[in-house]
Amino acid sequence: MEVEAGVRTGTVHRIARENGLLFPPDPGASEQSTIGGNIATNAGGPHAFRYGVTGSWVTGVEAVVPPGEVLTSGGPLRKNVAGLDLTSLMIGSEGTLGIVTSAWLRLVPAPEERSVVVGFYEDTHAGCDAIAMIMGSGIQPTALEFLDRGALESSLGSFPAMAPDRAGMAVIAETDGTAEEVARVVGELVEAMAEGALLPPVTIVDHAAIRDFWTWRDGVSIAVTAQRGGKISEDVVVPVELLAEAIEETVRIGESHGLPACSWGHAGDGNLHSSFLVDLSDEDQMQRGKEAAAGIFDMAMRLGGSISGEHGIGSLKTAHVEDALGPVAVRLQAEIKKVFDPKLLLNPGKKIPLP
Amino acid sequence: MEVEAGVRTGTVHRIARENGLLFPPDPGASEQSTIGGNIATNAGGPHAFRYGVTGSWVTGVEAVVPPGEVLTSGGPLRKNVAGLDLTSLMIGSEGTLGIVTSAWLRLVPAPEERSVVVGFYEDTHAGCDAIAMIMGSGIQPTALEFLDRGALESSLGSFPAMAPDRAGMAVIAETDGTAEEVARVVGELVEAMAEGALLPPVTIVDHAAIRDFWTWRDGVSIAVTAQRGGKISEDVVVPVELLAEAIEETVRIGESHGLPACSWGHAGDGNLHSSFLVDLSDEDQMQRGKEAAAGIFDMAMRLGGSISGEHGIGSLKTAHVEDALGPVAVRLQAEIKKVFDPKLLLNPGKKIPLP
Repeated sequence: MEVEAGVRTGTVHRIARENGLLFPPDPGASEQSTIGGNIATNAGGPHAFRYGVTGSWVTGVEAVVPPGEVLTSGGPLRKNVAGLDLTSLMIGSEGTLGIVTSAWLRLVPAPEERSVVVGFYEDTHAGCDAIAMIMGSGIQPTALEFLDRGALESSLGSFPAMAPDRAGMAVIAETDGTAEEVARVVGELVEAMAEGALLPPVTIVDHAAIRDFWTWRDGVSIAVTAQRGGKISEDVVVPVELLAEAIEETVRIGESHGLPACSWGHAGDGNLHSSFLVDLSDEDQMQRGKEAAAGIFDMAMRLGGSISGEHGIGSLKTAHVEDALGPVAVRLQAEIKKVFDPKLLLNPGKKIPLP
Repeated sequence: MEVEAGVRTGTVHRIARENGLLFPPDPGASEQSTIGGNIATNAGGPHAFRYGVTGSWVTGVEAVVPPGEVLTSGGPLRKNVAGLDLTSLMIGSEGTLGIVTSAWLRLVPAPEERSVVVGFYEDTHAGCDAIAMIMGSGIQPTALEFLDRGALESSLGSFPAMAPDRAGMAVIAETDGTAEEVARVVGELVEAMAEGALLPPVTIVDHAAIRDFWTWRDGVSIAVTAQRGGKISEDVVVPVELLAEAIEETVRIGESHGLPACSWGHAGDGNLHSSFLVDLSDEDQMQRGKEAAAGIFDMAMRLGGSISGEHGIGSLKTAHVEDALGPVAVRLQAEIKKVFDPKLLLNPGKKIPLP
């Protein structure tokens, strides 16, 4: 599909679907976000676990680069090594190198069916054991998500299927394929997720129920925000085998700053949204929230992870980039920035720290 | 998997397999090539159709960049948008930016079974109709290959299963998954490939027979070379719906230069290895071969394709890069080259044309 940058991602999904095809990347705000924005941030989402992030589905971009030249990189081709990979350099560059104006996207045949399986667990370790069981079993779910105790306290009341009154962790897995494949993998998922679960894993098969389920999942961030009116939420990645440690450390960092904390996100990618609940009008809470967020970045780096999985750097995280990337990468990307944008006009001060 | 650059790709495959896992990229010379070389060229291979090229499986690299600094980009993480995508910039850069010293690779659970289906057709159009039928049917084979009439003339004698005496085109599809999935998809492939086939599509199910088949497929290049002792072979990409045109144009370009010509390659990716048979000691033939190769590049560009899908640019194609990429991309990549390698010490004159 060749698409202009201002088309909403939800429109891309619909056009693909109407033609029996699938554009897999599904960042939360697909009805609000544009495909150009998704490319500029290399947006992720739940189905990145099996299908990869936005960049995995972009075979070329057209972009305007200073002083106003049109760069065409890649095209409607599945393989291309004629030049350096300028397409990937533009993807996730957050508007610091040029402005993406159109893109070529790769699509795949739409799967016939999908189903969701949800397991609820007593605590983080039981939940992470289920994740390890799934990943070690040879099953490749399309999505593998989690919510911790705090995220569930905010959102379990509106869960659109059977759920316990409370739980220490929820694990969500989705699979797609032919009806037979989906039935078989759902059976395997239920078996892998049953051990240590508070009740038998919930299976969601019906199309409308699956849609309701993902609407609920998209609403988790809003439900968490509603607790105190605001949150400071970070988006870090850790090696997946250290996910339990990152979930528990998030809560401890909150406690040490006197703030309720929780996390949820893309378990299979080791990508968690660590959040601290704050009243946005309370300066003291905001200050403690920022300090707690810095603690989350330190944790991600200590665990060998990254300070951003899918939300990007923007202005808020730029000060942490040098610690995260090291001096060689920071020098190289600052010089690449100057190659594209010698007058530093494009999103100055964002993403790329300059000397 | 974290792996040093000098490990042979075949060793990566074996270590993965011994642990129930799969490293999908399989460029032809996996027993001779190293993973560092595969990364430096962003090597492809038959299974790139479903699984993507080498770069799709690299989550991070360590590289030495001038004047001798260690760049670490990415790591054992499935998602990471902390910086510009320097990992993808290094992948396929053919040693012009730095020297890859180690890499982090992504692996997936190994499929239980696989099977190959081969169809033989009267001519290019019947073969390309079968390819269109497969791609339009919703089947996603792991590999989707072709050999044209000339490539079959050189290699059909050693085909390790039933084959007609001669054919205008062969189409090869492979699928993997559970035993049930493979059986189902083989049935669908046979149905999609039967129309217009010279005999019922050949199904290769047995593990040893599949290995023999791919050994035969790997040998096609050598079999073609054996005809005259040498060949000038190019690696171009076209939009897949123009594959038939590119196959026939290859033969016509050969005829107009008085050279036998043929092509084979990765049909589903629109990636063909257009080859002209020459006697390497005959200067006149060599000159005509080079002119024919230039005609192949012109054809790829005219059809909206690329002058290299997986073999790279090296020194031979650098003169054609400016036409292929256009002045803006050429300027940007030359300046990026100077950011990494200001003294132009790394593979000078290769891949990246400099002003």
